[in-house]
Amino acid sequence: MGMWVEHLNDRQCWELLERAEVGRLGVLVDSAPEIFPVNHVVDGRTIVFRTDGGTKSRGLDRSPSVCFEVDAVNTRDHTGCSVLVKGRAERVRDDEELGRWSALPLVCWEMGPKTHWIRIVPTEVTGRRIDRIVREDETLLSVREG
Amino acid sequence: MGMWVEHLNDRQCWELLERAEVGRLGVLVDSAPEIFPVNHVVDGRTIVFRTDGGTKSRGLDRSPSVCFEVDAVNTRDHTGCSVLVKGRAERVRDDEELGRWSALPLVCWEMGPKTHWIRIVPTEVTGRRIDRIVREDETLLSVREG
Repeated sequence: MGMWVEHLNDRQCWELLERAEVGRLGVLVDSAPEIFPVNHVVDGRTIVFRTDGGTKSRGLDRSPSVCFEVDAVNTRDHTGCSVLVKGRAERVRDDEELGRWSALPLVCWEMGPKTHWIRIVPTEVTGRRIDRIVREDETLLSVREG
Repeated sequence: MGMWVEHLNDRQCWELLERAEVGRLGVLVDSAPEIFPVNHVVDGRTIVFRTDGGTKSRGLDRSPSVCFEVDAVNTRDHTGCSVLVKGRAERVRDDEELGRWSALPLVCWEMGPKTHWIRIVPTEVTGRRIDRIVREDETLLSVREG
């Protein structure tokens, strides 16, 4: 039994981004990467989440080049898929947008007021699925057994 | 019902790092953070994983300040815990170490030869658990109902 990697198309990537309830934000803090789990929603072809004024918020202000990752891993057989969004984080202050986003199904995983709204505008979205290949003789075996 | 955050101690962080079958490596690639899911093992107080000669391997060579994150999230009630390791990635070439690591229970999630062994030597390990607080009147309610 072997493994194969399938590169996901744009639609598949956005489906996974929409389905994932938790994603991971990668941001530069003091010149080194840090990763924060965040709850997000997909709004058009952007990623929206809330944050407070802590480490990741300061990192976003100083270094808006960020990434956002979601994955779904089957730990039993080590198959799974992952999507990586590279893009630019923008702080949103526009009242009309904020009003619209308040209606989005955005559950805050963390405590705190989370008063800052951030939008990631993607420059690149890539995804891959890792699966197992059933060998031809395994298929034949199951046919014989059936 | 409110939320509270508990900061995990060192032992709790390493237990979570050991239990997690998949972690996420944060590495700088062309001055921007990228996140890669990797299978890892805990070896002493370091994180060990294998990689091939692709993007993340080049990123590690150019910018060895990395981070490594594991989390366990309950998507139903949005509780969970996460651990962030900040540290330095070292490529391992020592035959004795490589021999010892080959015996570690390191399952490769991805395909490919994964000929490079990387060790993250932590400079900082932090973790937190997010849970729900049952309000006093909810407790009273369940006592009355019981």
